[in-house]
Amino acid sequence: MYLASDNIGPALPEVMEALTAANQGHAKPYGNDPWTERASAALRALFEAPEASVHLVATGTAANCLALATMSQPWQAITCTPLAHIREDECHAPEFFTGGARLNPVGQAGDKMTVLELDAALSGLPQGVVHGSQRGPVALTSVTERGQVYTLDELGALCDVAKAHGLKVHLDGARFANAVAALDCSPAQMTHELGVDALSFGATKNGCLGVEAVIFFDPSDAWELELRRKRAGHLFSKHRYLAAQIEAYVKDGLWLDAARRANAKAARLVAGLRDLPGFTLAADPQANMIFATLPRATHKRLFDAGAYYYIWEGELEGKDPDEPLLMRLVCDWSIPEAEIDRFIETARNVA
Amino acid sequence: MYLASDNIGPALPEVMEALTAANQGHAKPYGNDPWTERASAALRALFEAPEASVHLVATGTAANCLALATMSQPWQAITCTPLAHIREDECHAPEFFTGGARLNPVGQAGDKMTVLELDAALSGLPQGVVHGSQRGPVALTSVTERGQVYTLDELGALCDVAKAHGLKVHLDGARFANAVAALDCSPAQMTHELGVDALSFGATKNGCLGVEAVIFFDPSDAWELELRRKRAGHLFSKHRYLAAQIEAYVKDGLWLDAARRANAKAARLVAGLRDLPGFTLAADPQANMIFATLPRATHKRLFDAGAYYYIWEGELEGKDPDEPLLMRLVCDWSIPEAEIDRFIETARNVA
Amino acid sequence: MYLASDNIGPALPEVMEALTAANQGHAKPYGNDPWTERASAALRALFEAPEASVHLVATGTAANCLALATMSQPWQAITCTPLAHIREDECHAPEFFTGGARLNPVGQAGDKMTVLELDAALSGLPQGVVHGSQRGPVALTSVTERGQVYTLDELGALCDVAKAHGLKVHLDGARFANAVAALDCSPAQMTHELGVDALSFGATKNGCLGVEAVIFFDPSDAWELELRRKRAGHLFSKHRYLAAQIEAYVKDGLWLDAARRANAKAARLVAGLRDLPGFTLAADPQANMIFATLPRATHKRLFDAGAYYYIWEGELEGKDPDEPLLMRLVCDWSIPEAEIDRFIETARNVA
Amino acid sequence: MYLASDNIGPALPEVMEALTAANQGHAKPYGNDPWTERASAALRALFEAPEASVHLVATGTAANCLALATMSQPWQAITCTPLAHIREDECHAPEFFTGGARLNPVGQAGDKMTVLELDAALSGLPQGVVHGSQRGPVALTSVTERGQVYTLDELGALCDVAKAHGLKVHLDGARFANAVAALDCSPAQMTHELGVDALSFGATKNGCLGVEAVIFFDPSDAWELELRRKRAGHLFSKHRYLAAQIEAYVKDGLWLDAARRANAKAARLVAGLRDLPGFTLAADPQANMIFATLPRATHKRLFDAGAYYYIWEGELEGKDPDEPLLMRLVCDWSIPEAEIDRFIETARNVA
Repeated sequence: MYLASDNIGPALPEVMEALTAANQGHAKPYGNDPWTERASAALRALFEAPEASVHLVATGTAANCLALATMSQPWQAITCTPLAHIREDECHAPEFFTGGARLNPVGQAGDKMTVLELDAALSGLPQGVVHGSQRGPVALTSVTERGQVYTLDELGALCDVAKAHGLKVHLDGARFANAVAALDCSPAQMTHELGVDALSFGATKNGCLGVEAVIFFDPSDAWELELRRKRAGHLFSKHRYLAAQIEAYVKDGLWLDAARRANAKAARLVAGLRDLPGFTLAADPQANMIFATLPRATHKRLFDAGAYYYIWEGELEGKDPDEPLLMRLVCDWSIPEAEIDRFIETARNVA
Repeated sequence: MYLASDNIGPALPEVMEALTAANQGHAKPYGNDPWTERASAALRALFEAPEASVHLVATGTAANCLALATMSQPWQAITCTPLAHIREDECHAPEFFTGGARLNPVGQAGDKMTVLELDAALSGLPQGVVHGSQRGPVALTSVTERGQVYTLDELGALCDVAKAHGLKVHLDGARFANAVAALDCSPAQMTHELGVDALSFGATKNGCLGVEAVIFFDPSDAWELELRRKRAGHLFSKHRYLAAQIEAYVKDGLWLDAARRANAKAARLVAGLRDLPGFTLAADPQANMIFATLPRATHKRLFDAGAYYYIWEGELEGKDPDEPLLMRLVCDWSIPEAEIDRFIETARNVA
Repeated sequence: MYLASDNIGPALPEVMEALTAANQGHAKPYGNDPWTERASAALRALFEAPEASVHLVATGTAANCLALATMSQPWQAITCTPLAHIREDECHAPEFFTGGARLNPVGQAGDKMTVLELDAALSGLPQGVVHGSQRGPVALTSVTERGQVYTLDELGALCDVAKAHGLKVHLDGARFANAVAALDCSPAQMTHELGVDALSFGATKNGCLGVEAVIFFDPSDAWELELRRKRAGHLFSKHRYLAAQIEAYVKDGLWLDAARRANAKAARLVAGLRDLPGFTLAADPQANMIFATLPRATHKRLFDAGAYYYIWEGELEGKDPDEPLLMRLVCDWSIPEAEIDRFIETARNVA
Repeated sequence: MYLASDNIGPALPEVMEALTAANQGHAKPYGNDPWTERASAALRALFEAPEASVHLVATGTAANCLALATMSQPWQAITCTPLAHIREDECHAPEFFTGGARLNPVGQAGDKMTVLELDAALSGLPQGVVHGSQRGPVALTSVTERGQVYTLDELGALCDVAKAHGLKVHLDGARFANAVAALDCSPAQMTHELGVDALSFGATKNGCLGVEAVIFFDPSDAWELELRRKRAGHLFSKHRYLAAQIEAYVKDGLWLDAARRANAKAARLVAGLRDLPGFTLAADPQANMIFATLPRATHKRLFDAGAYYYIWEGELEGKDPDEPLLMRLVCDWSIPEAEIDRFIETARNVA
């Protein structure tokens, strides 16, 4: 019952096979190999963006921060939600890569930002005076940290606000596939057609071993990103092993299929828990993540039964057995339905 | 005839199998998995360093620069040879990771540094005044950029100089296995027994897909390195895929066996070329790299015959067919002897 | 009627005379001069801190950020109020000097932080995991950005919270003299006796041309700060001109006398305005700054009459003449009482 | 006999008077004051550069590094001589301000760089590959660190080389006035007419208390420099005290007159020493600095007689009384001729 994250499961068999197949013969290093060429072409085709530049790295933090560093200046604010991964989970990597840009949280504690909040946050940054943060790019995330998915209208409206302020938009797509699966849209519709300038196209969480793609829909800054990638130690000499993963991941819609499986499993899980006594959703799950409360006692029994997931707010140890504690449940493509059903059954038994 | 580098060949079959084997079931992320535990333990055992801290990353630049950043301050000079990889081939990654430390080249153009040169370079950094570079760690490399291997005596004497100045020593071991194979010593004998404080233990070039280990023989700064690794986007969520490579690489002496094969192939290659008319060694090869000159015309015919290697100094295009141009030939573990013999034969035919 | 700031008035005559007196003969550069020695000794005596290290710079931003950079690591959070000068008015200088530390605002919008808020903010930073901000120094300011002064009890209690978390405390004393004057305490009582580790001892706002002192009560990190100061271009070659200002400023209690004058003028101003129709204090002024609202129409007439001060919140242009707009009034040592009375009279006439 | 540097003397009386005169009444902070406006206008007029942007700071390191940071990228090499102040005397400030650019020394040990050396150094930086330093601005200095002055032809030819490589040129003019005095040219002739893009116009060494001007002849990057200045803590709130110095310094040719006095004194000094037994010039002095050797015994007697200057190479303590030691003698505007004559006389007596 491994529901802690989508970074704890194995890679897709097709990805592993592609990696094995790539492991023969010699190939030019540093991305000058046929796998890289094919992977880039595949992403450009997938995004209907023939001009886009594609840059592979091994981690999401690298993808996000290399992109944002290329898009910003050290004296600028990068506006994001308070819960954004770049703000909460990257140990100041944004500050490191940008040379000191600041993360400017929108609103108080929100997960999705609203058009009004974003406009207020950007307007709150003074212009033409040197003392405070200068206006910089807007950093969005979808699927959000709390499992929500921006509608295309919402995302487009946020991009419009950024553009109205003359600012660029980065989208952290660590779970991009899950969002596309939820929206049933095309990759282009969720990105450059709305005004997204740069994307971290996540693949690790959804079935690769470790690879993400930075996509710049306008390739003007591609060379700068190449230099930044090398300077940060993120250029692989044996680059084909990144590219082979992406190639397999994108081929024949595998990426989307895997995300649909993950989302469907989360739907199955929430359906099985929805009427459980003491179970309260923090928000309606829209992709492959569930945030909900259960009483402390139920959590304890679930853990005793071998479940592995995170308590997100509150302490497992505590007196009141009925106190609701927020948990996060994440389904990856690989978790068997039987495991989900076992989790549901266990929860029902102990509730 | 792929002799351009040891980063162009495939990974060792044992490594690939281990990766495939690791790709099942769930594992805790970020290094809290059994593969990581076993890989760390294996490295500690290999180095006879039960207290050492081990940190896996995917690239040599990351390994070198995270280690050096942890060992230095931004106002310090890191003393290295003019040809060091950190100085010539990492696009200012040392400056980036350290926050502005400076690479202080020893001597004029040397490949191996001498005790006298190192002492002079360190003594040349003033002490107690704020205006110039302050003294920082010494960064050694073996196998060197030009294919040389420091003897244990040489390495120990350089460490002694560093210690006499109160400074720490980092060893860039991108080709550590090839050096150990050449010296026929133990890993401990080449590192902490001599005074090496930190090692970048390379594995990518010698048969992995992409993994290197930073080893701190004194683990005092381990936590700082962990934070630096995360902040630089170099902590893998699916960390088992790094660890599984290392585990297989170290198991049963595979690492050393692969290096011995690579070194032996280079020896075969140089033996076949040694009496070739127009062939001049820049220095006697000691591991798996050969630096030597051939006449321009010979290079051209070799390239025409499908050889793939780098002209290191000089221009392939040029008038004089007899002008000697420096080449670099590198043998990795995987290059077939038949390929080497074909290269020799082609060279003989055209010479 | 210059009430915009305490950085718009002239320097104290005694300071100017000292500067002129220092301008003869030769003196060793970079702080190796008798003025610097005397100024340091005077500050150590003033603070009853014979071991303290003293470092002069020309701006408050330099003082704050050099101190904080020495006290923190790039992956740490520096906890401060949302309104702190380092957060609002230094154009990311803290991020620049620290190499990427993050400012962690306490509470929502507060001016003074409370013990409970600070403890919650520090406890909210996780420990032992690499993903988020690590715990770093606490940065306090008194007089605060909104003109408040922490009592000694409040300040001591905040220091105690920091110490309980094992953290150091920096005090931004841009208006340190005004705070001491308000509290009628000794410099030692307001700093190291409470647990303050480092102080930015402001002098520019209170009657110098441009000089601030960083004081480390524990001098262990003095050399690092010296290097950081040089590296940031903040070491003056003709250092005596900084030191001469400090020497005169500290001599015979001039610094405290000037602050008392400034505070008294603010008291006179607020007394004259207190019962003015439409005048509402945002908080009771405690030093030389007044935050209060006046109706838009009154502001307009004051500006028409030649008053120079800042509207802090709201827009001067707007329809409703009665809408209250927050202003900031600051008295420096030099503003004549007649000017204050004229401001009061004008406000009364127009109200 | 204070000949150690031109940063050990007093400020020009006219500058001190201007500072005193500026010390009355109120003035808007951060450069929005009439002094700043007048100083900027005066510099633009002096340089016949009506479009130029002018930015005042207090130290030469700040001027150099803010300018270079604005002109370069972190992955670029800044080409300069091995002896350049930015390389030898600024404690890695260039690396700090630029975020990791590297100083790329031209030639082996030269003081003035030649066109051939510069072209070779720039050509030696690869293009289009990410591994090494990328090409960045050329940083020249005149008067050089060894007291030499580039002719206009030399300077223009170096600018031409930079332009041919598509690179910008910065001129460190810490002793700009001494160079102009030596060349008897106009400021425009020595800068933008030759292709110099940015100048650090030094004033501190030549008679101010502490002020330098960054001048961008093309003002496109002015706003970036303003932000960088603020972010580095180099924007003075009481900015008039910087501006008043510059205004007086530039007025009625005072700057040039002071430099002529300094140069003349150095000429007097060298004339008096030229035929001294054991006196050997390292190079013919061209401005206000003399590099020459004297026997150890002579140095000792000069120091015993109260002379204050630096031994530049070699150790004063040592056995051989006849060993020549390199000294640096610098004349500032203020040193009395009698002092110079006394130095000469003392040297003659002891020689």
